[in-house]
Amino acid sequence: MPSPSPLALPFPDLPPIAGVRLAVARAGYKAWDRADLTLVRLDAGTAAAGVTTKSRCPSPEVEWVRRALPLGHARALVVNAGNANAFTGARGRDAVEAIAARVAGAIGGLPSDVFVASTGVIGVPLPIDRAEAGLDAALAAPEASWREATDAIGTTDTFAKAASTRAVINGRTVTLVGIIKGSGMIAPDMATMLGFLFTDAGVAPGLLQRMLDRANAETFSCITVDGDTSTSDTVLAFATGTAGNAALGHEDEPGADAFQAALTDLCRQLAHLVVRDGEGATKFIEVAVTGATTAGSAHRVAMSIANSPLVKTAIAGEDANWGRVVMAVGKAGEPAERDLLSIRFGHTVVAREGRVVDGYDEAPVTAHLQGDRVEVGVDLGLGDGRATVWTCDLTHGYISINADYRS
Amino acid sequence: MPSPSPLALPFPDLPPIAGVRLAVARAGYKAWDRADLTLVRLDAGTAAAGVTTKSRCPSPEVEWVRRALPLGHARALVVNAGNANAFTGARGRDAVEAIAARVAGAIGGLPSDVFVASTGVIGVPLPIDRAEAGLDAALAAPEASWREATDAIGTTDTFAKAASTRAVINGRTVTLVGIIKGSGMIAPDMATMLGFLFTDAGVAPGLLQRMLDRANAETFSCITVDGDTSTSDTVLAFATGTAGNAALGHEDEPGADAFQAALTDLCRQLAHLVVRDGEGATKFIEVAVTGATTAGSAHRVAMSIANSPLVKTAIAGEDANWGRVVMAVGKAGEPAERDLLSIRFGHTVVAREGRVVDGYDEAPVTAHLQGDRVEVGVDLGLGDGRATVWTCDLTHGYISINADYRS
Repeated sequence: MPSPSPLALPFPDLPPIAGVRLAVARAGYKAWDRADLTLVRLDAGTAAAGVTTKSRCPSPEVEWVRRALPLGHARALVVNAGNANAFTGARGRDAVEAIAARVAGAIGGLPSDVFVASTGVIGVPLPIDRAEAGLDAALAAPEASWREATDAIGTTDTFAKAASTRAVINGRTVTLVGIIKGSGMIAPDMATMLGFLFTDAGVAPGLLQRMLDRANAETFSCITVDGDTSTSDTVLAFATGTAGNAALGHEDEPGADAFQAALTDLCRQLAHLVVRDGEGATKFIEVAVTGATTAGSAHRVAMSIANSPLVKTAIAGEDANWGRVVMAVGKAGEPAERDLLSIRFGHTVVAREGRVVDGYDEAPVTAHLQGDRVEVGVDLGLGDGRATVWTCDLTHGYISINADYRS
Repeated sequence: MPSPSPLALPFPDLPPIAGVRLAVARAGYKAWDRADLTLVRLDAGTAAAGVTTKSRCPSPEVEWVRRALPLGHARALVVNAGNANAFTGARGRDAVEAIAARVAGAIGGLPSDVFVASTGVIGVPLPIDRAEAGLDAALAAPEASWREATDAIGTTDTFAKAASTRAVINGRTVTLVGIIKGSGMIAPDMATMLGFLFTDAGVAPGLLQRMLDRANAETFSCITVDGDTSTSDTVLAFATGTAGNAALGHEDEPGADAFQAALTDLCRQLAHLVVRDGEGATKFIEVAVTGATTAGSAHRVAMSIANSPLVKTAIAGEDANWGRVVMAVGKAGEPAERDLLSIRFGHTVVAREGRVVDGYDEAPVTAHLQGDRVEVGVDLGLGDGRATVWTCDLTHGYISINADYRS
């Protein structure tokens, strides 16, 4: 691994999840000395849900997952690191099918019960022989730890990213654990964001999917490093039901709200970790937009700010350049009235009703910008729509990682 | 001026345009020793047309221009450099009105015949006293050259940018000259793109506006440096009618096609010069998309590629990373079929029908990428829609200019 991001957090202690068995192996997708294949076996009856990239050119793994998700059940997950298998034509599809068939044959169940995700170089079909040898090794391997699995799914990540939380459903405590990889929406070798959530809660597949969609909408869909989108981004959630709660089937049932809150919290923790590993990041940035005509409009304005190279470089330079925020609001194409616009950095309002505040003192703003967590607030003064998104700054480090490099 | 862009071109010889009189003066909008106010007097009867930023938070100058354009006539243009007068509330509006009134009073005509554009720092109302003193100096100054006017409208530009062309209308040769400033859609001090086109052709205002809209759609609207959009971007065209041709009134008239072609050519030359002065640019990049379902769809896919930080950094690194092009196609949200997609760098096709070509040889691609003009071609294989856009690479220079800087 390269040296850790300055925004890295330590790897947390994570509890086991009954019904989830981890194994890792070295398939050798690249010439490296590390585990690069992860096999997660899931107890029969595990519910599955997922969200995948919106890319119009997805990997065959993404297509496979999209076909499997409506069935709602999973018996295993295979994650390959070092080869994304994207843009590989029919041979890429064959590799995914071969993996699913081999795992289903070994552990029982149908190939459609086996979820597959891959990350790494693109344009090179995943070598089926290496995948199969890796799978055989993983099937025979001792149980791995969360840390080992998190390391094995990583590629250009600079630190291992995982989180956990708990909820109480009808008196039963359920546990949720998530592991994630990604640093940049996409990185030198297509460093896709892949996230995997595991819980011992009993949740019906349809409800789990709706809850994951909701959690995703306010977490993973609200982060950006460089505005680029991988062909392979995937987040999957698996609920084994081993905690013994009466399985949740609908949002109205007792405990559903608590589980939704815990799931969203877990996703937010993981999403923030990805931003903290953003390529070249030195500052974690929260952009909060209020006063928009709708929540969707607020989200688009916030993303316009969070994706603006000029806003991101200004924050990297600790420069209270609120003019660039005005620019990013203006270019979003959403309803905005210059003469109603207010902007703050941290708690300091710098502009109100379309002009800089009287007696504007830059000192507290500069102090805020010198920290490693920066808040940009924009009030559009039009309505009740609000949204918050997270990003990182744009630095020489990003250029070094992405330009001073040959594939 | 900082050291010139490596993509800079020499300042061309430019012919005079009868009916256009240039003057420059030092208003002192910043603490610098250079002319920063440009006054262009135009003969009575000059037709005017223009396009302005799509920003929802435009400067008062942009609002002033938008109100004046429907009248279709101009007597003068004033350009202020060093202060964009954007986001300045009522005081900013007062400054624009004061400038227009003073010029109209001095040269005759109505305030609405006076076009105003400003570029520079934002949030600081344009000082009316300095503007008025500068105007008085410009009114008394000797005639300035195109080069002096081009220098006077510049801010963070690293070289002076201008071009000319000619057309024949019914046996009369007409001349077109354009000057432009901008390096980055927007730069440290909101280095807005301001472009001014002058011709001695006789063209009715309505036709001039339609022709400028068409030229703009395939030139200025097809360039991007960083995807950011200024609050002040403005391109104005002025036709004095002094060439003596019977004024063109409609697209069907003889010579109209020739004039449209010349106007578009002029705009394309100027647009390319702005890209060549893109912040930190070391390579001029043409992105051509064919086979889209519509021309609009092709344009959006091309812009997604041209604005992708990962594509731009790959080209900066002379890395034939076609996977990032696939990614940028996929994220555009436009109709695309992975298995129909072809990608070329220069004349070398690297991927066809959704996978890398057999026996792909990277050598000619790398040689192409080592030049300072890079062509990326994408065929979507779906229809007849096509579009071409231009951008530059994303380098450490961009970060240095925009992050290693305090406003």
